[in-house]
Amino acid sequence: MDREKALGIVESKIKGPRFQHTLGVVETAIKLAEKYGADKEQAEIAAIFHDYAKLMPISELKNFLIAAQEDERLLLYHPELWHGPAAAYILKKEFAIENEDILNAIRFHTTGRANMSLLEKIIYLADYIEPGRNFPGVVETRKLAKIDLDQAVYKAISNTISFLVEKKAAIYPDTFEAYNFFILNKN
Amino acid sequence: MDREKALGIVESKIKGPRFQHTLGVVETAIKLAEKYGADKEQAEIAAIFHDYAKLMPISELKNFLIAAQEDERLLLYHPELWHGPAAAYILKKEFAIENEDILNAIRFHTTGRANMSLLEKIIYLADYIEPGRNFPGVVETRKLAKIDLDQAVYKAISNTISFLVEKKAAIYPDTFEAYNFFILNKN
Repeated sequence: MDREKALGIVESKIKGPRFQHTLGVVETAIKLAEKYGADKEQAEIAAIFHDYAKLMPISELKNFLIAAQEDERLLLYHPELWHGPAAAYILKKEFAIENEDILNAIRFHTTGRANMSLLEKIIYLADYIEPGRNFPGVVETRKLAKIDLDQAVYKAISNTISFLVEKKAAIYPDTFEAYNFFILNKN
Repeated sequence: MDREKALGIVESKIKGPRFQHTLGVVETAIKLAEKYGADKEQAEIAAIFHDYAKLMPISELKNFLIAAQEDERLLLYHPELWHGPAAAYILKKEFAIENEDILNAIRFHTTGRANMSLLEKIIYLADYIEPGRNFPGVVETRKLAKIDLDQAVYKAISNTISFLVEKKAAIYPDTFEAYNFFILNKN
């Protein structure tokens, strides 16, 4: 699918600030793909579609997770975690996107997971640091992204865990497994 | 086993500041048992023995974990997590302590776990707040311990996760599961 067609499909679903965020993620993901040797076209497609399901009603997202036979634990956690897996399912079904790495980059872009692929790391990080983002820790994570991809993703995941503990919010197991993976597998 | 005999066994293994800490945990655990309706004698025995293996060499602890067929993931994490499970194993084998709740309170006193028993919560919390402890968050946790056991244990576990993230240290899955359990199961 070419860039313009993909952007058109996404813009029809998420107009306004969320679409501006998507454009920021696309721009950032392409830069990261260039820097770290990932496939730029795959990074672009994954970035364009990562928030495709972001504005869907919760009940609809839930139905997609059930149809996708997604990990049932997701339904116990915050619905904010549902749009990635739902989008991956819809894109495969409705838009014939078959590349598993692209689908997984979309699926895990909110939670992360242990042993992420290069593309998964790029989309996770691009979503976290795109130019429109403004929260504590983002400036430091942007700096790390220019030096070391793993360190930057690890920083983003650490910040997320600290933020969730501060908020007294549950932490999805994949996120904490991503955190431990970076620590237990660093050289 | 009576109090004096148990204290004698433990003092022979952990003299000095670590034994003073144990006396603090015993005093605190008995108070918590009185307040929250747990068996005081079980709380006392669990508290006396909780750090029985604390000063053993790492290689010896490791052998006990293997002999106990403990969760193999423990060996990937910090040896600080090994003395609880090792003590539970030794106490059953060598001192014929058979009560599973006492053994589990000792086994999980460093990590916590999801769905802790009353006695497990009391030993976990007593270890965290005994009068000799002095670290950020302990005063607030002591206050909570006088009001609400679950809130106090949750606070101790949250503090521990924040502390480990700050230190860039791995977080044992049981600790995370304890954290999520309190959030996902609160009323």
